[in-house]
Amino acid sequence: MASMVFTDCCSTTTPRLLPFRRNPLFHRNHGAVFLRPLINPSSPRRLSLHSSSASASPSPSPTASLATEESAKVIDGKAVAKQIRDEINAEVSKMKDAIGIVPGLAVILVGDRKDSATYVRNKKKACESVGINSFEVRLPEGSPEQEVLNSIAGFNDDPSVHGILVQLPLPCHMNEQNILNAVSIEKDVDGFHPLNIGRLAMRGRDPLFVPCTPKGCIELLHRYGIPIKGKRAVVIGRSNIVGMPAALLLQREDATISIVHSRTKNPEEITRQADIIISAVGQPNMVRGSWIKPGAVIIDVGINPVEDEKSPRGYRLVGDVCYEEASQIASAITPVPGGVGPMTIAMLLSNTLVSAKRIHSFQ
Amino acid sequence: MASMVFTDCCSTTTPRLLPFRRNPLFHRNHGAVFLRPLINPSSPRRLSLHSSSASASPSPSPTASLATEESAKVIDGKAVAKQIRDEINAEVSKMKDAIGIVPGLAVILVGDRKDSATYVRNKKKACESVGINSFEVRLPEGSPEQEVLNSIAGFNDDPSVHGILVQLPLPCHMNEQNILNAVSIEKDVDGFHPLNIGRLAMRGRDPLFVPCTPKGCIELLHRYGIPIKGKRAVVIGRSNIVGMPAALLLQREDATISIVHSRTKNPEEITRQADIIISAVGQPNMVRGSWIKPGAVIIDVGINPVEDEKSPRGYRLVGDVCYEEASQIASAITPVPGGVGPMTIAMLLSNTLVSAKRIHSFQ
Repeated sequence: MASMVFTDCCSTTTPRLLPFRRNPLFHRNHGAVFLRPLINPSSPRRLSLHSSSASASPSPSPTASLATEESAKVIDGKAVAKQIRDEINAEVSKMKDAIGIVPGLAVILVGDRKDSATYVRNKKKACESVGINSFEVRLPEGSPEQEVLNSIAGFNDDPSVHGILVQLPLPCHMNEQNILNAVSIEKDVDGFHPLNIGRLAMRGRDPLFVPCTPKGCIELLHRYGIPIKGKRAVVIGRSNIVGMPAALLLQREDATISIVHSRTKNPEEITRQADIIISAVGQPNMVRGSWIKPGAVIIDVGINPVEDEKSPRGYRLVGDVCYEEASQIASAITPVPGGVGPMTIAMLLSNTLVSAKRIHSFQ
Repeated sequence: MASMVFTDCCSTTTPRLLPFRRNPLFHRNHGAVFLRPLINPSSPRRLSLHSSSASASPSPSPTASLATEESAKVIDGKAVAKQIRDEINAEVSKMKDAIGIVPGLAVILVGDRKDSATYVRNKKKACESVGINSFEVRLPEGSPEQEVLNSIAGFNDDPSVHGILVQLPLPCHMNEQNILNAVSIEKDVDGFHPLNIGRLAMRGRDPLFVPCTPKGCIELLHRYGIPIKGKRAVVIGRSNIVGMPAALLLQREDATISIVHSRTKNPEEITRQADIIISAVGQPNMVRGSWIKPGAVIIDVGINPVEDEKSPRGYRLVGDVCYEEASQIASAITPVPGGVGPMTIAMLLSNTLVSAKRIHSFQ
């Protein structure tokens, strides 16, 4: 469990931009979709959805709506994710009917971490909800690395498996890079393979998979009809799993990108130039109102626990962006939770479907 | 031959930022080192060299010095490249004496393009000058793609070859991507393989090779002791061969990067924020004085031919940056020619040496 950080937007000091923390509530937190939104669901001011998908785009479920009384419109990740899951469900059925193939996602879990077990359970549930088969291998904490590699090799060769995830973090005695490199690039639905990242960076090349969280960020912009081309975009954080690929994706869509990180001397000044801000830094409420250009669109990837005596759990989750201040200035903003979190697992399901379609040449 | 562009800095209109052109005088122009400097070599104001290399760093040859009467100091790529070639020469001799191995670079040339033939000849000369063996295959314009692939396969398997270059452009009937992908990643001294680019983009990973021109840009900054960490860096152009990898390299060194390109609405405003500008866009004199923050450092990758009746060739070469204006404002600047050009081929030789050392585990 990450250490608690006691931070709120009323603080007059500007938090320092620290190196990205691998917060277990954020890192590969495909389970965030199941967290209960904490934001007051009154006075809905959601943006209308403009789907970029060719498939049917039902309106978001009213029960999933999130709202605030502030001026910014809420980008409702929970509703979009629900819509995407419905689309995936329809595609999975169509594929099964047409060629008798059901997409399959395999997850390998090593050790007894409770948070990891929860995420794996949530992934399994999400697969079930859209008709994707899920496979699971659980290995004890002390397993030799070779045993994990053997499981990966088995799934690589298994034609009923189209996506493979190794739940992180792995026990300390294992070499994470060795293990992740063993996953066949055709089944690397996380999209973290360097070959995928290279293709993402290069013009004229296409990655096999786009990493789930950044893909979810861009999908939110698309679904809400927010233009990217020619816009100034600032990505805060340069992690391999979110910040860096998010910047590459924005550039692929012809945004002019700047990447702010722990060594940036004037993050506030640079961020204030952005039409689109994607923050993925793991610092609660770091992006204050003064960092935001009026009318900017904010995608807040951070999911940070802060102490909250009023909460039964003793803490609540907040983003990297001070929501109360930002929602007065931005034109649209993702809430935390209920913004990017639900999109990550939807994109994992999407990548698994993409993989199955590609492997079986199904359009 | 690229079409001539008639542009000088006296024009009052700001040139448009157009998509990057594959200028044959620039693209993979490892031969630029041999171009005669056009800048008046009086009143030397070169920055002193601070080598980042552990090896001996002789001062640049006085005969190679470039200078201007303006305020910016000249970053003398020709002198640095000479210094690097001397270092490589020493390393090659050391390796030969110690383990009897001589690094080898193979070049494949298809067709009769004069410019390509010149570049290949220049590469061969450069190899000879540092004691690297060079190998060459020349195939007629109409050769089948398979013949090129066969040559690559031969060099992939040849233990005396440590680097393979396919001279571009290839004839139209050939699939460039197929051919480049056939080069073994261990011998891809151009560093353009997506796996290399992916590793370059990712924190905690290292590419086998860094693409030559961007590597040359960063090496110039290092050798002149210009700090990168924490600086604002703007890269103009997002090509796979220069702009994009240059931005990734700057970010690896903790610069805060912004990438300006043909879809950027306010390139001048963004560029004016930079402490370091790398321009690789192929537009003669596009970056005017008003784009430059006083004291900025400018690395000009562009090598653009412009009409010049006074020149015996009828044209002269200029950079992307209006040198006359920029040299009044910047603190340091690379000339064109004699700046980045000579560095590209030096970095190709460096990558070939790196490859031979790695393959033979020689430190």
